[in-house]
Amino acid sequence: MKATAWAPVNLALIKYWGKKDKDLNLPWNSSISVNLSSLYTITTVEFSKKYRRDTVIIDGEKKKNEVDRVIQHIERIRSQVDTEDRVKIVTRNNFPKGTGIASSASGFAALTLAATSALNLKLSEKDLSTLARLGSGSACRSIPSGFVEWKKGDKNNSYAKTIFSKDHWSIRIATIILDEQPKEISSTQGHLLALSNPFFKVRLKNINKKIIALKQAIKNKDFINFGKIIEQETLEMHAIMMTSNPPLLYFSGNTVFFIKKIFLLRKKRLPVFFTLDAGPNLHLFFLSKNEKQIKKVLDEDKNIKKYYISEVATGAHLVSDHLF
Amino acid sequence: MKATAWAPVNLALIKYWGKKDKDLNLPWNSSISVNLSSLYTITTVEFSKKYRRDTVIIDGEKKKNEVDRVIQHIERIRSQVDTEDRVKIVTRNNFPKGTGIASSASGFAALTLAATSALNLKLSEKDLSTLARLGSGSACRSIPSGFVEWKKGDKNNSYAKTIFSKDHWSIRIATIILDEQPKEISSTQGHLLALSNPFFKVRLKNINKKIIALKQAIKNKDFINFGKIIEQETLEMHAIMMTSNPPLLYFSGNTVFFIKKIFLLRKKRLPVFFTLDAGPNLHLFFLSKNEKQIKKVLDEDKNIKKYYISEVATGAHLVSDHLF
Repeated sequence: MKATAWAPVNLALIKYWGKKDKDLNLPWNSSISVNLSSLYTITTVEFSKKYRRDTVIIDGEKKKNEVDRVIQHIERIRSQVDTEDRVKIVTRNNFPKGTGIASSASGFAALTLAATSALNLKLSEKDLSTLARLGSGSACRSIPSGFVEWKKGDKNNSYAKTIFSKDHWSIRIATIILDEQPKEISSTQGHLLALSNPFFKVRLKNINKKIIALKQAIKNKDFINFGKIIEQETLEMHAIMMTSNPPLLYFSGNTVFFIKKIFLLRKKRLPVFFTLDAGPNLHLFFLSKNEKQIKKVLDEDKNIKKYYISEVATGAHLVSDHLF
Repeated sequence: MKATAWAPVNLALIKYWGKKDKDLNLPWNSSISVNLSSLYTITTVEFSKKYRRDTVIIDGEKKKNEVDRVIQHIERIRSQVDTEDRVKIVTRNNFPKGTGIASSASGFAALTLAATSALNLKLSEKDLSTLARLGSGSACRSIPSGFVEWKKGDKNNSYAKTIFSKDHWSIRIATIILDEQPKEISSTQGHLLALSNPFFKVRLKNINKKIIALKQAIKNKDFINFGKIIEQETLEMHAIMMTSNPPLLYFSGNTVFFIKKIFLLRKKRLPVFFTLDAGPNLHLFFLSKNEKQIKKVLDEDKNIKKYYISEVATGAHLVSDHLF
């Protein structure tokens, strides 16, 4: 009745922005992501009669308020078996709070795998991914390994699967922490603004072509095309955000300074490309052979508070139970 | 055979972005602007047999390379009269070079008025505006006074006229200089990228509604609505730029820092709104009664290199000949 799971943060290359169904977390478009080896959540779930109530401990703190979504997710899973047992959940992120790195994807992926394993439910990867999605949309992408596609699907069929293995291509990802302020408007709220945006439908109309082109670039290990597509995509998502009503400006001044630095680095023939999510921090893509040069740039930049260098990682999996 | 003209920089509230005809400077959409009292060009034009060649002196420097467009514009005007006289043009901007403030609009407006006056051509405001447009598209908006609309029109009929007088509304505009680097891609080049952008057609489809709403806000002196519309519009133009191929990021890190400061000032109930053009500098709109508070904010900000506070100004007009 106890299990521990590891799950990576996943980084979208083709973004999930805009919810078609906010209860089922169904997206308006398919998305593509990679799992990051250096950013992850480890979660232990134990169901037991010895507990008098459900308890959630996140990064060493017993949580009361923020746990509704967690307990709701546990109910989804617990209701599949015949048990009255209460649950104890202990979860840790390897990145500190307030870094602007979202823990919901890795968190709900780890929670889903640990809870279903603790209850001895034998779920397929597809079913795990589907179930994780109900907890937090993009969590479905932290279940499969490597390069992942979340096909938008429909009510009964929306989950993620591996499109290329983690060893397919030795690219590296540097996640750089530039600002730590909380967002003014959460991405959950932001998602709901997407459809009111006049440009959003044009984005949806064209996105499948972009998905096909990105898969082709990954397949061919065509780093320059890969980089151009992911930058175009992230700028497009932020263009959609900026033209929402109210406008959402998720990037900061430091983000823009560093983006312009990336353009300069490329002029100096260092191939490096960026993406960013609904926040100010940047993720840099580069080839493993350029890691030393990239680290030098990052070490010398005073605006960078911290950075993590990842490889493309495996998906969620069970690990030895060392947190209790 | 000699005349001197003053013309203001004009600031677009509904932007001109995207050229339908690059030789005739015809825009894809109508635009709205205000003339700025504190940023201007004064140009003296003299036609005389005593000159052996055409000479252009800009801000005290005799120019050779940058003057093709100027001489081409003079030819347009000179060809309307029967003269072989060479020209001497002396032009001064009251803002230093490299501030990122475009001098082409005020420059071509002043040049058009001074040159046609020196040749004693009696042109109507409409004809002056049309002629200025051929020199530099947005120069047509620096001819009429106050709040100005440039109706996109067609080949034979595209010019600007006053929609509200300069005394209609006592708003103020602070132009703040944040960065002085030259642009990577000129706005002339940028204009040509607009149509390849998938969102641009959606912008054009919706822009007339926005123009009507902005005119209504100016008419009613509804500052909050006015501010919301101009910010939405400037963010939309930059969204279009960001999603061009190649992407254009005209704003800088400092621009974004200050935009977020403006959002904070509004939370503290200081009504101030921004717009920006194809560059990093911001123009802040506020009511004259808040000028003291705004100046305090600007004086305390270390990122601001210089600022200019304008009223809504008159259009181009002849002034006494004090530069020769």
